[in-house]
Order: sequence, then C-alpha cells, then structure tokens
Amino acid sequence: MTIPGSIGQVQTQTARLFTEQEPLRLASGEWLGPVDVAYETYGTLTPAKDNAVFICHALTGDAHAAGLHSGAKRPGWWDNLIGPGKPLDTNRFFVISANLLGGCQGTTGPASIDPATGCAYGLSFPLLDMADFVTVHRALLAHLGIDRLLAALGGSLGGMQVLQWALTHPEQLTNAAIVAASSRLTAQNIAFSAVARRAIMDDPEFHEGRYAERGVVPRLGLRTARMMAHITYLSEDAFSEKFGRTPHPERDKPGFGIDFAVESYLDHQGRVFLERFDALSYLYLSRVMDYFDPFSRAGVTDLIAQCPVNFLVMSFDTDWRFSTEHSRRIVKHLSNAAQPVTFRNIPSSWGHDSFLLPVERYHDTLRAWFTRALQEGLR
Amino acid sequence: MTIPGSIGQVQTQTARLFTEQEPLRLASGEWLGPVDVAYETYGTLTPAKDNAVFICHALTGDAHAAGLHSGAKRPGWWDNLIGPGKPLDTNRFFVISANLLGGCQGTTGPASIDPATGCAYGLSFPLLDMADFVTVHRALLAHLGIDRLLAALGGSLGGMQVLQWALTHPEQLTNAAIVAASSRLTAQNIAFSAVARRAIMDDPEFHEGRYAERGVVPRLGLRTARMMAHITYLSEDAFSEKFGRTPHPERDKPGFGIDFAVESYLDHQGRVFLERFDALSYLYLSRVMDYFDPFSRAGVTDLIAQCPVNFLVMSFDTDWRFSTEHSRRIVKHLSNAAQPVTFRNIPSSWGHDSFLLPVERYHDTLRAWFTRALQEGLR
Repeated sequence: MTIPGSIGQVQTQTARLFTEQEPLRLASGEWLGPVDVAYETYGTLTPAKDNAVFICHALTGDAHAAGLHSGAKRPGWWDNLIGPGKPLDTNRFFVISANLLGGCQGTTGPASIDPATGCAYGLSFPLLDMADFVTVHRALLAHLGIDRLLAALGGSLGGMQVLQWALTHPEQLTNAAIVAASSRLTAQNIAFSAVARRAIMDDPEFHEGRYAERGVVPRLGLRTARMMAHITYLSEDAFSEKFGRTPHPERDKPGFGIDFAVESYLDHQGRVFLERFDALSYLYLSRVMDYFDPFSRAGVTDLIAQCPVNFLVMSFDTDWRFSTEHSRRIVKHLSNAAQPVTFRNIPSSWGHDSFLLPVERYHDTLRAWFTRALQEGLR
Repeated sequence: MTIPGSIGQVQTQTARLFTEQEPLRLASGEWLGPVDVAYETYGTLTPAKDNAVFICHALTGDAHAAGLHSGAKRPGWWDNLIGPGKPLDTNRFFVISANLLGGCQGTTGPASIDPATGCAYGLSFPLLDMADFVTVHRALLAHLGIDRLLAALGGSLGGMQVLQWALTHPEQLTNAAIVAASSRLTAQNIAFSAVARRAIMDDPEFHEGRYAERGVVPRLGLRTARMMAHITYLSEDAFSEKFGRTPHPERDKPGFGIDFAVESYLDHQGRVFLERFDALSYLYLSRVMDYFDPFSRAGVTDLIAQCPVNFLVMSFDTDWRFSTEHSRRIVKHLSNAAQPVTFRNIPSSWGHDSFLLPVERYHDTLRAWFTRALQEGLR
C-alpha cells in the first residue's frame, strides 16, 4: 500500500532492555526486571547518527506513531506529522517512537507478568516517576547505538517526558519540543484524574487490580474514565461546533440512552478505548502526571544552565486540559535558567486534542523548527 | 435555638396536590398521580398576599432552604440569603421553597411508590419537562391560596424554572431573578451529564432502576457522578486556591488512594451525597436540563410581550458550568422581547457554586432588587 507522503507499512519491534538479573533501578529506589520496550522507527539514521528524533507519547498513546500496520485501516496516531515530506520529514530524520514504561502496548507495565509470581503485577507493580520513563527511553537509545538526539518531541504527558529528559540529561538533547504540556498539574487537573481512577477502582470487576487472573476487565469504570477525559480534550467551542445540540440520528424517543450526537461520540470513544487500553496503566500513568513538579526541586536547572537545550514550547489557545498558562510557566522557568526558548501559543479551536491534529500553524512551526534544528546540527 | 438573623427552627410540610383520581397532566401528555410536594415557608404572608417569593432549587437541592430542622447542625442550603435582615428578608417577605417534581426529598419522584404496582416507579416514572416543575409549583401556590408572586428566584436549574414560569405564566410573576442559569445547555454541558448518567446506569447495582426493591443503591455510579459534577461547580482558580497541590494530611505514602487534599474533598462530596440523593432523580432532573431550550419555540415570548416581568439575570465571571455567555443569551432573548432586564455579571472566584455562597456584590444586588420589588409592589 502506497500513499503519497506515507511511510507505508511499519512494524512494532520489542527489545528487552533490562533483565531480571540486571533490572531497572527506579527513581523510588525499587528494582524492576525484566523490562521490555515496544518501539517503532521511521526514516534512516545517518552514518553520523545526528538526525535522530525521539517521540514521547501521551497518556494513552503507543509506539505506533506513523505508517500502517499490516492489514490496518488507520495509520499511527501522529501520522499527519511524521512521514516523507511531512513536518517531521522521514526523508531527513530518523524517528524513534516507544511505548512508555507502565504502558500496555508492548512495554512492561502493570499488566505484564511478574516473574516472581507468574501472574500479572497488578497493583504490586511499583509506582513510577517521570524520570523512570526517561531512564527507559535512554536505555532504548543505547540499545539502538545512539548517544545523542537531535531532538525530542512530545505532546501532553509526552511533553512532560521531554521536559524531564532535557532537565536531567541535557547533554543528550540538542532540541526539545514540549507541546500542550504542564510542569505542574493544578488541583482541577488532579481532580479529573482522581475521579477517573476512582471510577476504575470502584468497578466491581477491578478486583484490587487482579482482574486479569479472573479473565475480566473493569470495563464500566475504564469507559467512564475515558468518556470524562474526552470532555477535557476538546474545547467547549469544539464540542458546540462538532455536535451542538444535534439529536442522535438513531434516537427514537427521549430517554436516558443516546439522545444527542455528543452522547454518541462519547459512547464511541469509551467503547473503542476498552479494546486498546488497560485500566491499571491508566492508574499508574495518570498518577505520574499528578506528582510531576520538576521545578519545585532545588537545583533542577543547574544542568541545563551548564548545557543549554533549544526549547520549543507550544500551547493551544483553547486548550483547557493544560491551558496556555501551563506552557507559560514552563517558559518562565526555562527563561529564568537562561535557556533559549521559543514559545508559540497556537490559535486552534480544538482544545487539548489540537496537538494530535494537522493544525496548520502548529505543523508549520514544527516544520520550520525541525529544519532549523537539522541545519544547525550540520553547521 | 436562637441565632441572630436566623429564622430558627422550621419544618418541612407535605401537601398532596394531585391525586390518583385527579392526576397531574404532564407536558408530554402523560398523567401522574398522586403527586405530593414537600415545602417550607418562612416569614409571614401579608393580608393582601402581596409579599410572596418562590424559591426554585437546583439539581440536588430540596425544600429546606433556610432555618434549622429540629436537631440539625447545619441550616438550609440558602440560609445565608434567607432570614430576618438577610437579603431575602423574612421580616418583609413570605418565602416559599418546594422540592421539585422528580426529586427525592419529599416530593413525588421516581423513587416514590407507583400506585399501579405498589413498587417504586423506577424508570417507569414519566420523563419530565421544565414546564412540569412549574405546573407543580403553581399547584402549590394555589394550595396556599396565593394567586400571584411578588417574585420567583432560582439558581442554576432553579433559574431555569423561574425563566420557564415567567415565559408561560407572566401574569403570575411581577419579578423574576435568574441566577447562574442557562436557557440552552451546550454540548459540553450535556456531555458532563451524559457521563454522570452513564456511570449511574452502568453500576451493577442499578438493576434497570429497580434497585430499591433489592434494598441496594448504585452507590459507585452516583458517587462518580457527584465527584465529577463537583469539578464543574468550582472554578479552576477556586480549586487552586482552596487545595492547590497540598497533600492529604493522612496520606502515608504515594499510591492510588487519597494522596492530595483535592481528592479528599471530592471523596467527601461523593460520600455525603449518597446519604441524601437518589440516583433516579439524578437521571430525570439532569435530562430535563439537557432538553430545556425555550427560546427555540415559536411564539415563546408572546405572553411576556403582553405582560412584562421585571427580570434580574445574574452570572458569575468564573462560572464555567453555565458561563456568563449563557446568561447573556437569556438577556438578549428577553431584551428582544422588550422586557425590562437588569443584568449583572458578578465577580467571584468560586465559579458556579457562587450562587450558593454569600458573595457580597451578589447578595447586595439581590437585597436592593427585593427592596425595590417590594416598594414598587406597594405603590
């Protein structure tokens, strides 16, 4: 299958980056092994290995960012951005995308088998920290024989990983693009995640996280969590524009079912999510976001002060999940640490979801930024 | 017990306004009987019966708006507004507050016994319309021997009832105060209610609405619904100011429990709600709000054009449940119908909840408005 501007068929690969004998040391001091990581790469690494770009995904993303899996109808989640001639041009860049630690799409997470018990970890999986995601990303880079990235790029939780990476290992990143992210969730942000987690853990099929052993899934809680999250991913105007008060076409009479188009949309989003995401991963990954607050730590900018990174921070003006204020705060902290920071607040009517959409000014900005990054890298 | 400015002890009374033989005709054309209504009154009706003010409550309110029930520690939900010397001064006004149709605190609703079966109605309770609330309020007025109100006042869903009342029976209202309300929910508004309803109906203890017969309650769904709703009742700034990222004092170590103060707040709100509210009422009353859209009906302002009402429309600048735009839309429609409308967008950091709080400019505005209403009434 060939689509112009498309990468074509791709495959997810898996690497065992840590073993039981040589486990991963987490930020908490706990040990975890084995750790497998699912990843994909697009484009070709130059012999000088100076064109690598690492993609960090958001809460429910996976390694499959671009191209088509065999037999699939839909391409990867960031296919509008990554490909030949696209803003992140795979004719020029070597792009790496990995499922993050604690995830459920090939990388070790709470649904993986604990070698100590032969059963899924469940809630005995250790709590994670943003730094742990970066540790595993770095191990994947080493596995691929790459020392240094031309750039790292991520949206939402992905942007938080990029920020963590830049702050703790600036020597490894020349450029860091942080889109629609936050360095510090607000009480309201935490509140939404708290209700989502509560819905999951209250589901009678949660069984204290041991649902896999019983062959069940806390479907109702996970669906509620996802439906609620989707409300925060779109702007209020986007909801109005997309659905308004349009009745659902299949509604026969008013009741408590799917009466409005917006209810059909949420129902669909909730249902498809069950097919691809694990409830425990939702708990673990969302909790990492709640606790992320890097600039509250003394000396956190000491390393970047010695070894600056070119930062691009982008927000979307209608994003109310992580509003422009979140990005401005990141910019302020980075500027105070004398970092070169480009900040763009992109007009887009789609809210937080904009980072996944082909918003023209957003893509144009990334295209120019990556082009400059490559040119400066060649100088 | 005497508190200065307090009404003191009050009691909820119940009146049978419709019987099985003479049932209530709903807007849908269906019949419902018997219909009992729980209500309270405060202050003294003048011999001329010209000082009556009707209070319409919001989604989860009840008849107990002011004063203290015997043995209670907390007064009614609008006690800061209603009482001797308070903005709605019970030395001057006769205040009536009734639990609305479909509710669960004394007025007939889906948890009431269906005389046809001897069991709770459950989902066989008829769907309601905003007009039905007003029909029952009017029947209560007739029961009390009052033809005409000096004013009706309500916040949120209460304001929607006041608007409906003024549009359909303007001859009965001299003044109408509509606070933090909407004449037309947005897709996002509907989305939040849809997820709440889904959480309730998905709860395994919902049993298609027949949970009462089994002696259970869909606690998990109702709690999730309430926790989510509370996020929309406060502004993001209010959450930040009230809780920020403060850890919960009883947290021993990070996990998936109550780690942050904001999680403790939501947990508390969810739990206390279970003690006082019925899941079916939540479904029925929230659905009425979704469908409310009076200005979309042809000729809806014909009656007020003939018989103007003095409107006061108020919003709160940080309310994102029903933002100021909702109130502006109401003002625009009323102004187009040549109604005398006073509009105030009150600065308050508390969001939608402000209508329940003693926000100074809000209370001052209501005090002045009620004083003027009484003076004009005496002229």
